[in-house]
Formats: sequence, structure tokens, C-alpha cells
Amino acid sequence: MPLHEKADQAASLLAEVNLDCWLTLARETGLHPDPGVEQVVGADVVRNSAFLFGVGGERIAIVANFDTSAIRGHGVFHEVVGYDEDIRGPLLNALRKLDPTTIGLNYSTDDVTADGLTYGHWLLLQKLLEGTPYAQRLTSAAPLLSRLRARKSHTEVDRIRTAVKLTEQIVDQLTLQIRPGRTERELAAFVHTRFAELGVSPSWAADACPVINAGPNSDFGHSYPSPTICVETGQVIHVDLGLKYQGYCSDLQRVWYVRRPGEVSPPKEVVKAFETVKRAIDAASSVLRPGVQGFEVDAVARQIVVADGYPEFKHAVGHGLGRAVHDGGTMLGPQWPCYGSNPEGLVEPGNVFTLELSVMTSAGLVGLEEDVLVTADTCEFLSTRQHALILI
Amino acid sequence: MPLHEKADQAASLLAEVNLDCWLTLARETGLHPDPGVEQVVGADVVRNSAFLFGVGGERIAIVANFDTSAIRGHGVFHEVVGYDEDIRGPLLNALRKLDPTTIGLNYSTDDVTADGLTYGHWLLLQKLLEGTPYAQRLTSAAPLLSRLRARKSHTEVDRIRTAVKLTEQIVDQLTLQIRPGRTERELAAFVHTRFAELGVSPSWAADACPVINAGPNSDFGHSYPSPTICVETGQVIHVDLGLKYQGYCSDLQRVWYVRRPGEVSPPKEVVKAFETVKRAIDAASSVLRPGVQGFEVDAVARQIVVADGYPEFKHAVGHGLGRAVHDGGTMLGPQWPCYGSNPEGLVEPGNVFTLELSVMTSAGLVGLEEDVLVTADTCEFLSTRQHALILI
Repeated sequence: MPLHEKADQAASLLAEVNLDCWLTLARETGLHPDPGVEQVVGADVVRNSAFLFGVGGERIAIVANFDTSAIRGHGVFHEVVGYDEDIRGPLLNALRKLDPTTIGLNYSTDDVTADGLTYGHWLLLQKLLEGTPYAQRLTSAAPLLSRLRARKSHTEVDRIRTAVKLTEQIVDQLTLQIRPGRTERELAAFVHTRFAELGVSPSWAADACPVINAGPNSDFGHSYPSPTICVETGQVIHVDLGLKYQGYCSDLQRVWYVRRPGEVSPPKEVVKAFETVKRAIDAASSVLRPGVQGFEVDAVARQIVVADGYPEFKHAVGHGLGRAVHDGGTMLGPQWPCYGSNPEGLVEPGNVFTLELSVMTSAGLVGLEEDVLVTADTCEFLSTRQHALILI
Repeated sequence: MPLHEKADQAASLLAEVNLDCWLTLARETGLHPDPGVEQVVGADVVRNSAFLFGVGGERIAIVANFDTSAIRGHGVFHEVVGYDEDIRGPLLNALRKLDPTTIGLNYSTDDVTADGLTYGHWLLLQKLLEGTPYAQRLTSAAPLLSRLRARKSHTEVDRIRTAVKLTEQIVDQLTLQIRPGRTERELAAFVHTRFAELGVSPSWAADACPVINAGPNSDFGHSYPSPTICVETGQVIHVDLGLKYQGYCSDLQRVWYVRRPGEVSPPKEVVKAFETVKRAIDAASSVLRPGVQGFEVDAVARQIVVADGYPEFKHAVGHGLGRAVHDGGTMLGPQWPCYGSNPEGLVEPGNVFTLELSVMTSAGLVGLEEDVLVTADTCEFLSTRQHALILI
């Protein structure tokens, strides 16, 4: 079970990142999911709740009495303390017991997956800890959270692998549906039907997953498939899709060319674009290994695109992939302010990333996205690479 | 469309709560939903994004370029500014244009539905506003957010009404399934099948929705239906369930009694418990009207339960109901620290609340939950009240 794997990982990460205690403070997690709760608790909580991991192996959960049963049921916490009216007493008891010098909280300016603590809850924590020494011992648990999330366990990798395989099956089936006259929306509806049959959910909001781009007049980006734009001959068809299998995501881009009557192969412009995109992914994957920084991987792909005469893509060449489609941690991206320090993160074994980019042509957007696992000294493609345009 | 209704409501609330500007700062909302985004934006965003409502009617969205199309598509914002690398420039431009004296942010120590801003994002905002006068003008937008969420529009009330009706259909069908030998888990699976057939989702996490309690040895609270505990004669069967219809929730508790062979009516102990619970809900509803404070409504119900010799229930008699099953705002609850100032909130027309409580008997938990709409001067039951135990 990933839950127990992740809890064990968290316990061992404390010493590595020099934290005495990791404290997740959360409430109404159905409305306000917290990456900490998601990874090591396994059930939603309603009232103010605290989950503490101590560097000595302690694991304490403090939740409202009506939530204790579910938390106990998951078996992650050795001690599950229930309360009715006020969390303060049990929270201070737990902190006194651990007496940590450093208490890591779930916040980060840069990594959203390490930033579950709300500002209101931070203010509340100040009140709860008033008059105790613990108010002065708070720090960010982001170094723990980003590693916990990014170092995938075997179970996690297996689930992502399955998510990718299922997505590839849908891509194969979609190929049979791409024909002149089909609207973007019809193709998206076909994918949704497959999702439902497989009992999986889209990796991101269903109305924009899949993204379907038929030809050059489509709406690009995180956009909605059009009810009027349809597949025509001479077009590039570009799809960005992903699905969640047992809580873990895939994220792929695939690209087709719809031949005109009598046309054997795609126009040179389209083939050249495809080759550039593919070579950029080759290059990124060839440097993606433990110890490199995210921006180094991005730079390699970006240089190829620019050298081939295309404008720079306006996003990172890769992002973490896992429970969330944008799974935080190290970003394989340029050192732009919008990414904060994420591109400076180090790549580690067990990380899963996308490698993705696109260039525009007069026939439509040529884009690819593959999913890769970082191994001990290199990286492995989890997806079956697309080596050539799929011809319709 | 609720989206436009809520956006119009937000614009008019600014003057009422003395805010010049409401600023929602959000990112990766698929992972980190924000109540502000949910209510007035209508699409997920990825990179750091800002949504500003000015007291003069201005509506400005600043999002990454690949998100502009979806935001424009929803038509809420008059100005949609795209950016690639850094949000700082466009954000400061927008603030200079509005030049607000007070800028409300999505945080609250007490109301989770008004607390979408993360602590990391708060710190980031401090950096973005460094050297500008706006850093000193930040305050909480909770007074706006809680009203915005709690004053349901007609469309919102209609959706909740439908969610309640569909839930009642499921309850009727469930009655035919409750028979000796059925496990709690089997009954839950039946409800899940109905959810799937209706194309609706559970109001809270599926593994604990519905809660099914067969008899006195069940696991009470936000618990998982048991694969071994089954319906027996002489038992009270208690169910807590809700479903989400077009984004809006129901939340009901219903209760059955399974007669022993030859038994005509339930034991006195069970009937007495049912009458107490029903009378407590009668009493709460009789005082629920605009202008009362939440704790006053709770106190009326609580007194009846205690006067009848039962222990106090360890939760509020009612909570807001809407997009979330616990929809924030005024809480019809006791003034316990865990509820913060929420029980001191004023009840307003258009609010939707649950009214719920339970008492334990030797045959099982007797609990009821109804959904009510506050009208101009009283309240209206959205659910068809349960007036007697359903007999099996």
C-alpha cells in the first residue's frame, strides 16, 4: 500500500532533512486537500486535525472523535487521539512528548505540493501555540514533502506505469476515430467514454482533458475541445491527455497527420517540426539522471528548438508526475520567476517526469509528451515513444 | 449559471463589507482548490494566477498564457491578462489601476471555505508586493467570501433541491434492500450503484458515503461500512448519505427499525429516542430565521436532548450546505473553540443548513438529518421530513 510506504519514507526522511518533527495541520480536507494528508493519512478529516511524525519514530494523530475510527483503520498512526471541543490540549501534549527543536509545516513559496497549510490555519496555529516554546520552532517541511512526493515507491511507479499503458490503449483506439468531419468535441467525448469503461478519471479537469487540437485554427493551451472545429485533410491533430489509475496519473501528448487525397507522407514542414520535437526529447532524456539540476535538462531541449529556428516553448520541458499531474518537486524548467527555485532542484532516483514540448506549423501544433522514470544512473521511458507522426 | 450569479454577487458584496478590492491568488487549483476560484472563475489554473474584483465593477484575471482561453471562455472577467514568466508586472499594473485602500485575501482562521490562500502563497505575495504600498493594505476577505458562499442564488437552491430529491429516491429504494443478513458494505454498494446510475457523485469521500450503521455494534462517526456487520432483527439501521448534483450537495440521515418476528412496533426506548431527535429538529427549525445567531439555534436543540436525559451530541446541530457538504459560513453550533467564531455568525435569507443530531439506544443509533432553506422570515424544509421510524 502506498500509504504505508509513504509513511515509512516520511519517518526516515526526517533525519535526512534535519527535522525533529513533521506537523501537518489540516481541516475539512474534502474541500481543502493537503498533500501531507493525501500521502500519509489516507482519510479525510473534518475538524482541526494534527498529524505528527517524530524523528524517533513516533506517529501521533489528533482528530475529532468522529474521525478517529477511519484514521485508526488505516493503521499509519501508533497513537490516535480523539477530541470533541478543542484541539489545543492534545496538540500541546503531543508536542511536549516529542519536544522537537524544529517543527516542519506544510508550506512553500515555490512548490505547491508542499504548500497545504492555509494562511488562516497558520494564524490559528500561532494562537494555539501562544505561550509555548513551540511557536518559535516552526519551519518549512518542504524539503521533506518534496522528496516524499518525488521519490516514488515501487507501488507508485507500477500504478503510473499502468496509467500510461491504459492511456496508450486509448490513443490507439483514438487513431481509428480521427477522420475528416469529426469535431474536436466528438473526439474528446470518445476519450471520456473510454475513461468511463476503464473506470478511471481524467488526470485534470474533464472539460479540458483531453485537449484536442485539430489543425492550425484550434484553441491551444489548457483549452476546451471545440464543437465546431473538425478534422480536415492536411491537418495535424494534436492531443494532450492523461488518466488517473488508482490515484496515480499519466500525461501524454500524441500527434497525427491527416493526409490529403493522394498524399503519401506529411509535408516537409510538419516532418521537420516533428523531428525537432523528438530530438529535443531525446536530448533531454540523455541528460536526465540523478544529480543534475532541473534547469540543465530544460536548457538542452530548449537549445535544440531554438537552433532549429523555432520560438522557445513557454513552459518547462518537464514536470513531476504522480498523484497529481503536476506533482511538484524539481521542475525541469527554465529559471523563470514563475517557477521559483523549483528548476534548481536536484533530480533523484525514483523521480517520474514528463518530457514535453511543441512547435507550431501551418498545419497545426506538433507536440509530444513522454513519461520517464529516473533510475540509479539514467532514465527509463515509461511510455512507448512516438517515433513518427501517426498517419491517417 | 451560478458562476455569473456568484460573480455579480461578489461585485456587489465589496461595498457591503467595505473592501475596495477582492484579490484571489491561486495556482494549481486542480491540486489546491480555492473557494474563490471555484465560485467565480470556473476553470482550473496552473501557474500563479490573480483574480481581482474592484469596488468600481472592475474584474481582472491574470493567468499564464496557456490558461487565458479557458478563463475568457467563461466570460466572468472583463480583462484577461496573460503572462509567461513572471506575474509581478501584470499584478502590480492591475493594482495600480484599481489603487485599492483595502485588499481582501482568501483567509480565515475559522471558516475553511474562506481560507483558500496557502501560507506559502501569502509569503510569495509579500515578495511580489515588496516596495509597493499594497503590502500594507492586505486584509481578510472572509466577510465577503462567507456571505458569497452562504447566500445561495436561485440556481444554487434549485440544484440543492434536486440533490435532496434524488437522495430521497435512493433512500426509498434502500428501504427495499434492508433485510436481515445484508452487510453494511452491501447496502453501501447498493447506494453506489444508484449514484452511478444517476450520474452523480457522493457528497464526501465515497468510502465513507454513505455511512451505514446496522445495530449497536457498528462503527459510528465518519466510518466505513463493515463487510461483516449485518442487518439483524431488533436493530436500528442508521444511514448518513449525500450526493452532489451539478456541483451542489445534499446531506441526509435516515433511520429504520427492523422488527423481530411478531413485533408490530419498535421498542419504547427506540421510539422515545426518535421522538426526542425529531422534537429537537422541530425546535431548531422553529427558531431558525434571519437575524438569529448560529449558537442560538444549536442551544434550543441541545436543551431538548439533555432535558430528555440523553448526553449532548458532540457536534453542531447544523452546518452550511452547498458546493461543499460542510459549506462554511455561520455554524449552527455551540461556542466551542473548535468552531472559532462561526457559531456567532448571523443567519441570513438564502442560507441552506442541515439540521441533524442523534442519540444512542441499545438497538443502535437513532439519528436524523434534514436540509433547510432560510427564507425572508422563517425557514423551509428542502427535504421531506422523516416523521416516524421506517419499519422493516
